[in-house]
Amino acid sequence: MKILGIDPGISCTGYAVLDSDEAGKISLIELGVIRTLPSSGIAERLKTIFDGVCEVIDSLQPEHLAIESVFVGKNIQSALKLGHARGAAIVAASKSGLEISEFSPREVKQNITGNGNADKEQVQFMVKSILKLTNVPKPNDASDAVAIALSYIQTYKYKQRIKELK
Amino acid sequence: MKILGIDPGISCTGYAVLDSDEAGKISLIELGVIRTLPSSGIAERLKTIFDGVCEVIDSLQPEHLAIESVFVGKNIQSALKLGHARGAAIVAASKSGLEISEFSPREVKQNITGNGNADKEQVQFMVKSILKLTNVPKPNDASDAVAIALSYIQTYKYKQRIKELK
Repeated sequence: MKILGIDPGISCTGYAVLDSDEAGKISLIELGVIRTLPSSGIAERLKTIFDGVCEVIDSLQPEHLAIESVFVGKNIQSALKLGHARGAAIVAASKSGLEISEFSPREVKQNITGNGNADKEQVQFMVKSILKLTNVPKPNDASDAVAIALSYIQTYKYKQRIKELK
Repeated sequence: MKILGIDPGISCTGYAVLDSDEAGKISLIELGVIRTLPSSGIAERLKTIFDGVCEVIDSLQPEHLAIESVFVGKNIQSALKLGHARGAAIVAASKSGLEISEFSPREVKQNITGNGNADKEQVQFMVKSILKLTNVPKPNDASDAVAIALSYIQTYKYKQRIKELK
Protein backbone atom coordinates (compact mmCIF):
# COMPACT_ATOMS: atom_id res chain seq x y z
CA MET A 1 0.00 0.00 0.00
CA LYS A 2 1.56 3.28 -1.14
CA ILE A 3 0.59 6.53 0.56
CA LEU A 4 1.26 10.04 -0.66
CA GLY A 5 1.58 12.61 2.13
CA ILE A 6 1.37 16.28 1.22
CA ASP A 7 2.14 19.39 3.24
CA PRO A 8 0.82 22.08 0.91
CA GLY A 9 2.05 25.65 0.73
CA ILE A 10 1.97 28.26 -2.02
CA SER A 11 5.79 28.75 -1.95
CA CYS A 12 6.79 25.21 -1.03
CA THR A 13 4.68 22.04 -1.09
CA GLY A 14 6.32 19.08 0.63
CA TYR A 15 5.50 15.56 -0.52
CA ALA A 16 6.48 12.04 0.52
CA VAL A 17 5.51 8.59 -0.68
CA LEU A 18 5.65 5.77 1.86
CA ASP A 19 5.07 2.08 1.29
CA SER A 20 3.63 -0.25 3.89
CA ASP A 21 4.02 -3.92 2.92
CA GLU A 22 1.91 -6.95 3.96
CA ALA A 23 4.27 -7.69 6.85
CA GLY A 24 3.75 -4.15 8.16
CA LYS A 25 7.19 -2.89 7.17
CA ILE A 26 7.07 0.81 6.29
CA SER A 27 9.59 2.32 3.89
CA LEU A 28 10.21 5.74 2.44
CA ILE A 29 10.02 5.61 -1.37
CA GLU A 30 10.55 9.26 -2.23
CA LEU A 31 10.31 12.70 -0.73
CA GLY A 32 10.77 16.20 -2.03
CA VAL A 33 9.35 19.67 -2.42
CA ILE A 34 7.57 21.53 -5.20
CA ARG A 35 8.72 25.15 -5.09
CA THR A 36 7.09 28.13 -6.76
CA LEU A 37 8.30 31.72 -7.18
CA PRO A 38 6.22 34.73 -6.13
CA SER A 39 7.22 36.42 -9.40
CA SER A 40 5.40 33.68 -11.37
CA GLY A 41 1.89 34.86 -10.44
CA ILE A 42 -0.85 32.84 -8.79
CA ALA A 43 -1.98 30.93 -11.93
CA GLU A 44 1.51 29.68 -12.76
CA ARG A 45 2.23 28.81 -9.11
CA LEU A 46 -0.93 26.73 -8.74
CA LYS A 47 -0.31 25.01 -12.08
CA THR A 48 3.21 24.13 -10.88
CA ILE A 49 1.76 22.55 -7.71
CA PHE A 50 -0.95 20.73 -9.66
CA ASP A 51 1.52 19.43 -12.29
CA GLY A 52 4.07 18.49 -9.63
CA VAL A 53 1.57 16.43 -7.65
CA CYS A 54 0.29 14.79 -10.87
CA GLU A 55 3.89 13.87 -11.79
CA VAL A 56 4.56 12.25 -8.39
CA ILE A 57 1.30 10.28 -8.67
CA ASP A 58 2.01 9.19 -12.25
CA SER A 59 5.51 7.97 -11.49
CA LEU A 60 4.98 6.37 -8.07
CA GLN A 61 1.31 5.32 -8.25
CA PRO A 62 0.23 5.86 -4.64
CA GLU A 63 -3.33 4.74 -3.80
CA HIS A 64 -4.09 7.26 -1.12
CA LEU A 65 -3.47 10.92 -0.31
CA ALA A 66 -3.04 12.05 3.29
CA ILE A 67 -3.13 15.81 3.86
CA GLU A 68 -3.44 18.17 6.83
CA SER A 69 -7.00 19.36 7.41
CA VAL A 70 -6.68 22.50 9.46
CA PHE A 71 -5.04 25.86 9.12
CA VAL A 72 -3.59 26.86 12.47
CA GLY A 73 -2.56 30.47 11.76
CA LYS A 74 -4.65 33.57 12.35
CA ASN A 75 -4.11 35.49 9.13
CA ILE A 76 -7.00 35.49 6.63
CA GLN A 77 -4.79 36.09 3.58
CA SER A 78 -2.44 33.25 4.61
CA ALA A 79 -5.46 30.93 4.98
CA LEU A 80 -6.66 31.91 1.51
CA LYS A 81 -3.18 31.27 0.02
CA LEU A 82 -2.89 27.91 1.78
CA GLY A 83 -6.39 27.09 0.51
CA HIS A 84 -5.23 27.73 -3.07
CA ALA A 85 -2.25 25.39 -2.73
CA ARG A 86 -4.32 22.76 -0.93
CA GLY A 87 -7.05 23.03 -3.57
CA ALA A 88 -4.52 22.52 -6.39
CA ALA A 89 -3.00 19.46 -4.66
CA ILE A 90 -6.39 17.90 -3.82
CA VAL A 91 -7.71 18.39 -7.36
CA ALA A 92 -4.56 16.67 -8.72
CA ALA A 93 -5.09 13.68 -6.41
CA SER A 94 -8.82 13.56 -7.02
CA LYS A 95 -8.34 13.67 -10.83
CA SER A 96 -5.96 10.70 -10.47
CA GLY A 97 -8.58 8.71 -8.52
CA LEU A 98 -6.78 8.68 -5.16
CA GLU A 99 -8.81 8.41 -1.98
CA ILE A 100 -8.16 11.33 0.36
CA SER A 101 -7.84 11.44 4.13
CA GLU A 102 -7.45 14.59 6.16
CA PHE A 103 -5.67 14.81 9.49
CA SER A 104 -5.45 17.71 11.90
CA PRO A 105 -1.95 18.55 13.21
CA ARG A 106 -3.11 17.11 16.56
CA GLU A 107 -4.16 13.83 14.92
CA VAL A 108 -0.80 13.56 13.13
CA LYS A 109 1.01 13.93 16.47
CA GLN A 110 -1.38 11.52 18.20
CA ASN A 111 -1.07 8.86 15.48
CA ILE A 112 2.73 8.98 15.39
CA THR A 113 3.75 9.54 19.00
CA GLY A 114 0.59 8.58 20.90
CA ASN A 115 0.40 12.14 22.23
CA GLY A 116 -1.64 14.86 20.49
CA ASN A 117 0.42 17.53 22.24
CA ALA A 118 3.84 16.14 21.24
CA ASP A 119 6.38 18.71 20.07
CA LYS A 120 8.07 18.76 16.64
CA GLU A 121 11.21 17.01 17.93
CA GLN A 122 9.21 14.10 19.36
CA VAL A 123 7.35 13.66 16.05
CA GLN A 124 10.63 13.79 14.10
CA PHE A 125 12.23 11.28 16.48
CA MET A 126 9.39 8.81 15.91
CA VAL A 127 9.39 9.36 12.13
CA LYS A 128 13.14 8.63 12.07
CA SER A 129 12.73 5.60 14.30
CA ILE A 130 9.71 4.03 12.48
CA LEU A 131 11.31 4.49 9.06
CA LYS A 132 14.77 3.48 10.36
CA LEU A 133 16.38 6.64 8.95
CA THR A 134 19.72 7.97 10.11
CA ASN A 135 18.62 11.60 9.78
CA VAL A 136 15.41 13.59 9.93
CA PRO A 137 14.29 14.16 6.31
CA LYS A 138 14.92 17.69 5.02
CA PRO A 139 13.54 20.26 4.27
CA ASN A 140 10.85 20.68 6.92
CA ASP A 141 7.96 20.68 4.43
CA ALA A 142 9.07 17.28 3.12
CA SER A 143 9.54 15.95 6.64
CA ASP A 144 6.02 17.14 7.56
CA ALA A 145 4.69 15.35 4.49
CA VAL A 146 6.37 12.13 5.71
CA ALA A 147 4.67 12.57 9.11
CA ILE A 148 1.25 13.04 7.49
CA ALA A 149 1.64 9.93 5.31
CA LEU A 150 2.87 7.97 8.32
CA SER A 151 -0.13 9.21 10.29
CA TYR A 152 -2.42 7.58 7.71
CA ILE A 153 -0.51 4.28 7.83
CA GLN A 154 -0.57 4.15 11.64
CA THR A 155 -4.36 4.78 11.67
CA TYR A 156 -4.87 2.14 8.97
CA LYS A 157 -2.81 -0.42 10.89
CA TYR A 158 -4.73 0.34 14.07
CA LYS A 159 -8.07 -0.14 12.30
CA GLN A 160 -6.84 -3.44 10.78
CA ARG A 161 -5.82 -4.68 14.24
CA ILE A 162 -9.27 -3.79 15.63
CA LYS A 163 -10.88 -5.70 12.74
CA GLU A 164 -8.74 -8.79 13.44
CA LEU A 165 -9.70 -8.73 17.12
CA LYS A 166 -13.43 -8.70 16.29
CA MET B 1 -12.59 38.80 -27.16
CA LYS B 2 -14.28 36.32 -24.84
CA ILE B 3 -13.91 36.71 -21.06
CA LEU B 4 -14.76 34.14 -18.41
CA GLY B 5 -15.77 35.66 -15.08
CA ILE B 6 -15.78 33.39 -12.04
CA ASP B 7 -17.16 33.95 -8.55
CA PRO B 8 -15.78 30.89 -6.76
CA GLY B 9 -17.35 29.18 -3.76
CA ILE B 10 -17.10 25.66 -2.39
CA SER B 11 -20.93 25.16 -2.51
CA CYS B 12 -21.67 27.28 -5.53
CA THR B 13 -19.29 28.68 -8.14
CA GLY B 14 -20.85 31.24 -10.46
CA TYR B 15 -19.50 31.69 -13.96
CA ALA B 16 -20.26 33.91 -16.94
CA VAL B 17 -18.78 34.27 -20.40
CA LEU B 18 -19.01 37.68 -22.06
CA ASP B 19 -17.97 38.67 -25.55
CA SER B 20 -16.71 42.11 -26.49
CA ASP B 21 -16.57 42.64 -30.26
CA GLU B 22 -14.36 44.98 -32.32
CA ALA B 23 -17.04 47.69 -32.27
CA GLY B 24 -17.08 47.53 -28.45
CA LYS B 25 -20.45 45.79 -28.21
CA ILE B 26 -20.56 43.55 -25.14
CA SER B 27 -22.85 40.53 -25.05
CA LEU B 28 -23.56 37.80 -22.55
CA ILE B 29 -22.78 34.38 -24.08
CA GLU B 30 -23.57 32.09 -21.14
CA LEU B 31 -23.91 32.15 -17.40
CA GLY B 32 -24.52 29.53 -14.77
CA VAL B 33 -23.41 27.94 -11.53
CA ILE B 34 -21.43 24.83 -10.60
CA ARG B 35 -22.96 23.39 -7.44
CA THR B 36 -21.40 20.85 -5.07
CA LEU B 37 -22.90 18.94 -2.15
CA PRO B 38 -21.31 18.93 1.34
CA SER B 39 -21.97 15.17 1.47
CA SER B 40 -19.60 14.62 -1.48
CA GLY B 41 -16.42 15.37 0.49
CA ILE B 42 -13.76 17.95 -0.34
CA ALA B 43 -11.99 15.95 -3.08
CA GLU B 44 -15.18 15.32 -5.07
CA ARG B 45 -16.34 18.93 -4.60
CA LEU B 46 -13.07 20.40 -5.88
CA LYS B 47 -13.01 17.96 -8.80
CA THR B 48 -16.56 19.06 -9.70
CA ILE B 49 -15.46 22.73 -9.72
CA PHE B 50 -12.31 21.92 -11.72
CA ASP B 51 -14.21 19.78 -14.25
CA GLY B 52 -17.03 22.33 -14.50
CA VAL B 53 -14.65 25.19 -15.26
CA CYS B 54 -12.75 23.02 -17.78
CA GLU B 55 -16.06 22.19 -19.51
CA VAL B 56 -17.06 25.87 -19.81
CA ILE B 57 -13.60 26.71 -21.22
CA ASP B 58 -13.66 23.79 -23.67
CA SER B 59 -17.09 24.63 -25.02
CA LEU B 60 -16.92 28.44 -25.12
CA GLN B 61 -13.18 29.05 -25.60
CA PRO B 62 -12.70 32.25 -23.58
CA GLU B 63 -9.22 33.81 -23.76
CA HIS B 64 -9.13 35.34 -20.31
CA LEU B 65 -10.25 34.59 -16.77
CA ALA B 66 -11.33 37.40 -14.44
CA ILE B 67 -11.70 36.45 -10.78
CA GLU B 68 -12.08 38.27 -7.46
CA SER B 69 -8.80 38.70 -5.61
CA VAL B 70 -9.74 39.29 -2.03
CA PHE B 71 -11.66 37.49 0.67
CA VAL B 72 -13.71 40.03 2.60
CA GLY B 73 -14.99 37.86 5.49
CA LYS B 74 -13.32 37.39 8.84
CA ASN B 75 -13.56 33.64 9.31
CA ILE B 76 -10.35 31.65 8.81
CA GLN B 77 -12.12 28.39 7.88
CA SER B 78 -14.29 30.22 5.32
CA ALA B 79 -11.15 31.77 3.81
CA LEU B 80 -9.54 28.32 3.58
CA LYS B 81 -12.67 26.87 1.90
CA LEU B 82 -12.87 29.76 -0.55
CA GLY B 83 -9.16 29.27 -1.23
CA HIS B 84 -9.82 25.63 -2.18
CA ALA B 85 -12.56 26.56 -4.65
CA ARG B 86 -10.53 29.44 -6.05
CA GLY B 87 -7.47 27.19 -6.39
CA ALA B 88 -9.48 24.57 -8.31
CA ALA B 89 -10.92 27.20 -10.68
CA ILE B 90 -7.56 28.93 -11.27
CA VAL B 91 -5.78 25.62 -11.96
CA ALA B 92 -8.50 24.73 -14.52
CA ALA B 93 -8.02 28.08 -16.30
CA SER B 94 -4.23 27.94 -16.06
CA LYS B 95 -4.16 24.38 -17.48
CA SER B 96 -6.23 25.63 -20.43
CA GLY B 97 -3.76 28.44 -21.11
CA LEU B 98 -6.03 31.36 -20.14
CA GLU B 99 -4.49 34.58 -18.88
CA ILE B 100 -5.78 35.49 -15.45
CA SER B 101 -6.67 38.87 -13.95
CA GLU B 102 -7.68 39.45 -10.37
CA PHE B 103 -9.96 42.25 -9.19
CA SER B 104 -10.83 43.30 -5.67
CA PRO B 105 -14.56 43.84 -4.95
CA ARG B 106 -13.77 47.57 -4.84
CA GLU B 107 -12.15 47.45 -8.29
CA VAL B 108 -15.16 45.59 -9.72
CA LYS B 109 -17.48 48.33 -8.41
CA GLN B 110 -15.14 51.10 -9.60
CA ASN B 111 -14.77 49.62 -13.10
CA ILE B 112 -18.50 49.11 -13.60
CA THR B 113 -20.10 52.08 -11.88
CA GLY B 114 -17.19 54.51 -11.58
CA ASN B 115 -17.57 54.37 -7.79
CA GLY B 116 -15.59 51.90 -5.65
CA ASN B 117 -18.16 52.26 -2.86
CA ALA B 118 -21.22 51.56 -5.03
CA ASP B 119 -23.82 49.21 -3.50
CA LYS B 120 -24.95 45.90 -4.99
CA GLU B 121 -28.05 47.45 -6.61
CA GLN B 122 -26.01 50.10 -8.43
CA VAL B 123 -23.64 47.42 -9.78
CA GLN B 124 -26.57 45.26 -10.90
CA PHE B 125 -28.25 48.26 -12.55
CA MET B 126 -25.10 48.99 -14.58
CA VAL B 127 -24.62 45.30 -15.50
CA LYS B 128 -28.21 45.18 -16.78
CA SER B 129 -27.83 48.44 -18.63
CA ILE B 130 -24.43 47.69 -20.29
CA LEU B 131 -25.52 44.22 -21.39
CA LYS B 132 -29.02 45.44 -22.36
CA LEU B 133 -30.72 42.78 -20.23
CA THR B 134 -34.32 43.00 -19.10
CA ASN B 135 -33.58 41.38 -15.73
CA VAL B 136 -30.62 41.06 -13.36
CA PRO B 137 -29.01 37.64 -14.03
CA LYS B 138 -29.82 35.01 -11.40
CA PRO B 139 -28.63 33.41 -9.10
CA ASN B 140 -26.41 35.96 -7.31
CA ASP B 141 -23.19 33.95 -7.81
CA ALA B 142 -23.73 33.98 -11.57
CA SER B 143 -24.59 37.68 -11.55
CA ASP B 144 -21.40 38.42 -9.57
CA ALA B 145 -19.44 36.43 -12.17
CA VAL B 146 -20.95 38.64 -14.90
CA ALA B 147 -19.84 41.75 -12.96
CA ILE B 148 -16.27 40.42 -12.62
CA ALA B 149 -16.01 39.60 -16.35
CA LEU B 150 -17.47 43.01 -17.19
CA SER B 151 -14.95 44.62 -14.87
CA TYR B 152 -12.14 43.13 -16.97
CA ILE B 153 -13.68 44.35 -20.23
CA GLN B 154 -14.19 47.90 -18.92
CA THR B 155 -10.54 48.05 -17.75
CA TYR B 156 -9.37 46.67 -21.08
CA LYS B 157 -11.43 49.23 -23.02
CA TYR B 158 -10.10 52.03 -20.83
CA LYS B 159 -6.50 50.93 -21.43
CA GLN B 160 -7.15 50.73 -25.20
CA ARG B 161 -8.55 54.28 -25.16
CA ILE B 162 -5.46 55.54 -23.31
CA LYS B 163 -3.24 53.82 -25.92
CA GLU B 164 -5.17 55.48 -28.78
CA LEU B 165 -4.79 58.90 -27.19
CA LYS B 166 -1.01 58.55 -26.91
